[in-house]
Amino acid sequence: MDTMRWLEEGCLELLDQTALPLFVTYIKCYDHNSVGDAIKRLAVRGAPAIGAAAAYGLALGAKRLDCTDKNQFMLKVGRIAEELAATRPTAVNLQWALSRMTDTLLSSGETAPSAIKSLLLAEAHKIYQQDIDANRLIGHYGQKLIPQDARILTHCNAGALATAGYGTALGVVTAAWEAGKNISVYADETRPLLQGARLTTWEMLQLGIPVTLITDNMAGYLMAQKKVDLVIVGADRITANGDTANKIGTYGLAVMAHYHHLPFYVAAPMSTIDTSLSTGKEIPIEERGQSEVTFLAGQQIAPEGVNVWNPAFDVTPHELVTAIVTEKGILYPEYSKSILGAVKSN
Amino acid sequence: MDTMRWLEEGCLELLDQTALPLFVTYIKCYDHNSVGDAIKRLAVRGAPAIGAAAAYGLALGAKRLDCTDKNQFMLKVGRIAEELAATRPTAVNLQWALSRMTDTLLSSGETAPSAIKSLLLAEAHKIYQQDIDANRLIGHYGQKLIPQDARILTHCNAGALATAGYGTALGVVTAAWEAGKNISVYADETRPLLQGARLTTWEMLQLGIPVTLITDNMAGYLMAQKKVDLVIVGADRITANGDTANKIGTYGLAVMAHYHHLPFYVAAPMSTIDTSLSTGKEIPIEERGQSEVTFLAGQQIAPEGVNVWNPAFDVTPHELVTAIVTEKGILYPEYSKSILGAVKSN
Repeated sequence: MDTMRWLEEGCLELLDQTALPLFVTYIKCYDHNSVGDAIKRLAVRGAPAIGAAAAYGLALGAKRLDCTDKNQFMLKVGRIAEELAATRPTAVNLQWALSRMTDTLLSSGETAPSAIKSLLLAEAHKIYQQDIDANRLIGHYGQKLIPQDARILTHCNAGALATAGYGTALGVVTAAWEAGKNISVYADETRPLLQGARLTTWEMLQLGIPVTLITDNMAGYLMAQKKVDLVIVGADRITANGDTANKIGTYGLAVMAHYHHLPFYVAAPMSTIDTSLSTGKEIPIEERGQSEVTFLAGQQIAPEGVNVWNPAFDVTPHELVTAIVTEKGILYPEYSKSILGAVKSN
Repeated sequence: MDTMRWLEEGCLELLDQTALPLFVTYIKCYDHNSVGDAIKRLAVRGAPAIGAAAAYGLALGAKRLDCTDKNQFMLKVGRIAEELAATRPTAVNLQWALSRMTDTLLSSGETAPSAIKSLLLAEAHKIYQQDIDANRLIGHYGQKLIPQDARILTHCNAGALATAGYGTALGVVTAAWEAGKNISVYADETRPLLQGARLTTWEMLQLGIPVTLITDNMAGYLMAQKKVDLVIVGADRITANGDTANKIGTYGLAVMAHYHHLPFYVAAPMSTIDTSLSTGKEIPIEERGQSEVTFLAGQQIAPEGVNVWNPAFDVTPHELVTAIVTEKGILYPEYSKSILGAVKSN
């Protein structure tokens, strides 16, 4: 099942992840607005996936511009990039992908708009393919951390659906499974939007990897009952010191893993690392609408008028992270050094 | 709003808590079966509330027995008590209330069945009223632990709805509010059955106490953001050493409160203390059906056929509990001594 696919007619098809697991439907995006909307309403979600989708979105936006004047073209593409960048604030992959796209523009010299359109689409394809390649490498390195018979707890969805393909945290799980390890997965349901219940379980069932669904508040007791050996999650942004923003609830899991002396791993491509920020305190945390918490599947589940706090992410400080798995290998503390080393080796 | 009320016609009315906050409806129970069903399907829930409801259930069951032979009557009432005791395993208040009812039977000497029926109803009324009185005392003692301007995190619902009236953990909150303290409450929604989202917020809104709803997985980040000063929860069973069974998710909160150096309080009547068990390892933990997790308000939210782990409670070890508030006063570690002292002072 592809998270996204490019149709030669000039259309980005996005798997509508809000409809999973009940319905498998694709959204056809012919312009950057529909891609931006899909990102905002989480039809496509997961840091690497929204990066790739935004890259295609910019390619689509440029493609539809009807101007031959280079200056005008550049200005308009700049505005489209800005619109796409504003769709979600926390995952840095969005900015990273758009920045790669604008680098293509900036180095275009005398190239005419019509030719730049092709360059932008080629760059989007490259971002897409490189993400899949990075995830395969993350799986390759990360699966070495997974013992035989490991019982693995994960949060939200960091699978093929959260990326261009294969997945980050679930890429590691998949690689361990493909290496013949007899593993099993516990999936936190991940309120409010249930990415764990809807997407992670669905991916694991498709791959035939044993999976058990729990509500988020069962994770602590699961650890106390010694039913889990390690935790692995994805990331939306990792700062220079290793602090990690990821789906709300990740921080609590890290605290509980620490208390139970369980390894807590983060798996993410280098595109998720933002060395322009020194610590997690600088990461903008998106707060989303109250109705995500007070309504579920159209059904009201809390009293009218109740106040809600709904941060979509939290930040796990680096001291709670056992290791960070990237396509450059496994990074260990002291992260300020290991991350810098990995970035420089690019 | 009464959690339950006795109608002189010989009927126990139970507020259907599964319908809250959208609908306020009462279930009329004329026999013990309907009371037992209401307990099983959580129409009435909360350890002290199911204790009082079961007591009324036994009184109703006895009332409807059409036999004058004392031996036959005792045997049948014994069976009804057994049926009611089997409805839910974790909350000890259920056993405690039924044991008080059977004590009434055992001390009935030569009293005829018809007169015993009245004695049983009188005992049920007493259990009901004593629970309210105990909760008021819990509030009286407990509110001293609540600082001015405290921001209080609670889990599940330990309010008037969970008891005969006034509440345990929320009784403490209410007493602090009535004492003029400018407090506010964060309510964990408490998956899978959302007692926090549906019941705690509803009670706080009715009382005019400021309340903010969060999903369970936000509690850790809430603490990290220094938005909360203390945690207070109810209990379903407390063993001789202070280990506390309560709604699933309580243990994780206790671990996170410990990590953030926040006080973690338990509020419960003495009827929740079970000194026949030395540690929490001996408490039977109810596991409930998978559909509680995979369906919400009739809507499927996880893939067909996924495996689910659904323990309804967890056990918080005594070393994570800062104090236990009872109607006998506030108990501090070492709990094996303070609990024994409180029990002996009965």
